[in-house]
Amino acid sequence: MTPRLFINAPLAESAAAPLSAEQAHYLKNVLRRDEGDAVLLFNGSDGEFSAVIAELKKKGGLATVGAQTRPQAAEPDLTLFVAPVKRAALETIIQKSVELGARSICPVITERTVATRINRERLQAIAVEAAEQCGRLSVPAIDEAVKFEAMFDDWPSGRRLMFCDEAGDDETKAWGGGEGRAAPALETLKSFDKKTESWAILIGPEGGFSPAERAALRARAFVAPVTLGPRILRADTAAIAALTLWQAALGDWRRP
Amino acid sequence: MTPRLFINAPLAESAAAPLSAEQAHYLKNVLRRDEGDAVLLFNGSDGEFSAVIAELKKKGGLATVGAQTRPQAAEPDLTLFVAPVKRAALETIIQKSVELGARSICPVITERTVATRINRERLQAIAVEAAEQCGRLSVPAIDEAVKFEAMFDDWPSGRRLMFCDEAGDDETKAWGGGEGRAAPALETLKSFDKKTESWAILIGPEGGFSPAERAALRARAFVAPVTLGPRILRADTAAIAALTLWQAALGDWRRP
Repeated sequence: MTPRLFINAPLAESAAAPLSAEQAHYLKNVLRRDEGDAVLLFNGSDGEFSAVIAELKKKGGLATVGAQTRPQAAEPDLTLFVAPVKRAALETIIQKSVELGARSICPVITERTVATRINRERLQAIAVEAAEQCGRLSVPAIDEAVKFEAMFDDWPSGRRLMFCDEAGDDETKAWGGGEGRAAPALETLKSFDKKTESWAILIGPEGGFSPAERAALRARAFVAPVTLGPRILRADTAAIAALTLWQAALGDWRRP
Repeated sequence: MTPRLFINAPLAESAAAPLSAEQAHYLKNVLRRDEGDAVLLFNGSDGEFSAVIAELKKKGGLATVGAQTRPQAAEPDLTLFVAPVKRAALETIIQKSVELGARSICPVITERTVATRINRERLQAIAVEAAEQCGRLSVPAIDEAVKFEAMFDDWPSGRRLMFCDEAGDDETKAWGGGEGRAAPALETLKSFDKKTESWAILIGPEGGFSPAERAALRARAFVAPVTLGPRILRADTAAIAALTLWQAALGDWRRP
């Protein structure tokens, strides 16, 4: 397997690309690669290139860029809004969201959010590693956390929100039909125009959303409240399940 | 939140139910519960009962069983066959499979399986905890590992297999259509009779399936090869995604 690295620099055929000290260390001491060995490089804007390691030093390295292997392509316009949960679960959510093709990730501080300390730098590093591993051409930004109340400020026109109410709240765990009830996620997603360009998914904290938050969500016409089955899902499971269903029903898991 | 515990004993109204030393310790020292406090009990066969803690000692405890809160109900007939992966990822797969309603879980040793040491006792404990937490009425058994070659011995008649080929093999990462190509998972699942009673899902090791294994799988009429989108998924992500799509398309995430 050719190592695949995200580079924070322009990429073009025949140019030299800088490798960070961490990347040089990783190539040399973990993967046992050396000068002359092949790598794949991407930077989120110029596509993916084959390259050859030209130098691996303690302070960093250099690669000589060869031919472009894939042109740049964007992920579907899907943002994950997620209430921070305990560190391990939040890190799982970030890693899996990248693998599942979320374009961006934004922490939301809700009323019942307990874990409000977010190490954005570490989460961003997890996102980079996941992007390198899964073959993506871009790394989603981990946005600065927003308060729930501010979530809809500057909400892009036309963007829909899949609201996953996984708190075990009776009203939404029960199957849909009545006023204010949520419907099965897949059924709901499939009822929307496949050409709706922009979507977001909202995953709450372990304690769920407060009644005021749920009312605020349901008051918006672009919010689609959904259920994810009859069992109580942890926040990380719910996030992965919601991203999966969206990609399969409306995203790039469909036949082109 | 009332603590919910899996009990390895019969449950009936007005009977006494034994609590293990671990459960007594957990109730007393972690959840700070005491005699007289309420718990919910289930055992995988008699349904769920409300109960009251009658005794909490170091060696174990007792609960007095009250009214049945839910009658016993089976999970959908869905088995996860999964090649063991590294410990953390395998434990994630077990926990999430329980939350996502797999009825049973069977490790499969394939040609490229690296992690062949399985601590079934620990995995079973993870399954119990996940069942307690997600509200299930049963705990899936973690079966003894089978070799890939023996997987189809005693295969129940009528059981279909969703074969997720996530190894990054070009033939299956490309979109379906040609001979031997896999099709998008959701499209494939939706093409089957909603009344097919029995299904299994197969998730391979990080290195994917060998050509011989893939040929053996594709030779079976009941095997449905599927893709899970254009990105390379880790084994745990693939397992969660596959279980999610099955439940949404054919399982109990649908409107009853």
